[in-house]
Amino acid sequence: MITMRQDAQQNRQKILTTANQLFREQTAANVTMAQLAKAAQVGVGTLYRNFPTKGDLFLALAYDQLGSYVSQQRAYLTTHPLDRPALKHALRAYLAFRENRYQVLPKGSLEPASQYYQRPDYQDLVHLFADLIQGADPQLAPAAVTFKADMLIAFFRSDSYALQRDVRHYSETEILDQVMTILFPVSS
Amino acid sequence: MITMRQDAQQNRQKILTTANQLFREQTAANVTMAQLAKAAQVGVGTLYRNFPTKGDLFLALAYDQLGSYVSQQRAYLTTHPLDRPALKHALRAYLAFRENRYQVLPKGSLEPASQYYQRPDYQDLVHLFADLIQGADPQLAPAAVTFKADMLIAFFRSDSYALQRDVRHYSETEILDQVMTILFPVSS
Repeated sequence: MITMRQDAQQNRQKILTTANQLFREQTAANVTMAQLAKAAQVGVGTLYRNFPTKGDLFLALAYDQLGSYVSQQRAYLTTHPLDRPALKHALRAYLAFRENRYQVLPKGSLEPASQYYQRPDYQDLVHLFADLIQGADPQLAPAAVTFKADMLIAFFRSDSYALQRDVRHYSETEILDQVMTILFPVSS
Repeated sequence: MITMRQDAQQNRQKILTTANQLFREQTAANVTMAQLAKAAQVGVGTLYRNFPTKGDLFLALAYDQLGSYVSQQRAYLTTHPLDRPALKHALRAYLAFRENRYQVLPKGSLEPASQYYQRPDYQDLVHLFADLIQGADPQLAPAAVTFKADMLIAFFRSDSYALQRDVRHYSETEILDQVMTILFPVSS
């Protein structure tokens, strides 16, 4: 038996998944809420109850994907050691997440950065990166570990990422290689 | 003889210098344009002609100080070699600039980051940092030099800097030391 709560949860997830698909095919700003409701096979009322504005939808999509990213990496780490390859694996997946965000959602910040830094989602991401950074370099002092995690996240925020893609013309792989070389050189 | 143009330039500079002083003493948001005009000894009309809104004033103040910072560092480098101590000297002064920004101007971005990244001021700062980074490590590939400069600037943007000060409780000196250790380790 599906409870109402599960049903509501499923609708919400269906909307987000469909929105991501639609936004990949067309520019997000051009997709109307009516089109999205139809494609997701939910009523327009259901859509607006979940996301009163498109800004709310964009933000929910970004955080939904960030949450999935962190969960997937945590799952990966239950069967893999916390080492440098695991860090690189996690950063490659993070770049894929940033790249999707860059392709799919409107350019620029969706909310003030100060709000972002206070979210539990941000904390979860910092902790994930910190665990990986510490795992890759067990000698590193805890303060330096958090510092590196913060630095990574600041560098990958949407505008800074867009600068690397649009102006510096780096691919995801080139960004990953530079970050690994600069922040996590193989100890000699 | 002082031409009108010089006179206008002097008024503008007097307003910016006075604004910085006033904003250090009181919260920037509480200072009225009338108070500022009086303190700077210019007419209210002159003030508004230069800065139609307080947002314009904040932005002009930030860029005026960034411009001064870059000029001062370029002047310093005419009599000092481009080496690791020069890089540290420049970063210490940059942190003082960020700290003043953090103390004096409203929290958060004054403009979208994408605008900031397109400004000549940003290019000047990247070039300054790139010259210093290359000087400190002549072996580093040019692409990695620019990448490090971008990374530094992204990390020091206002919200990220505020995170380090407010949440991580680092002092300017601690931030400088972490950055030097992580991004510019003394080659062994």
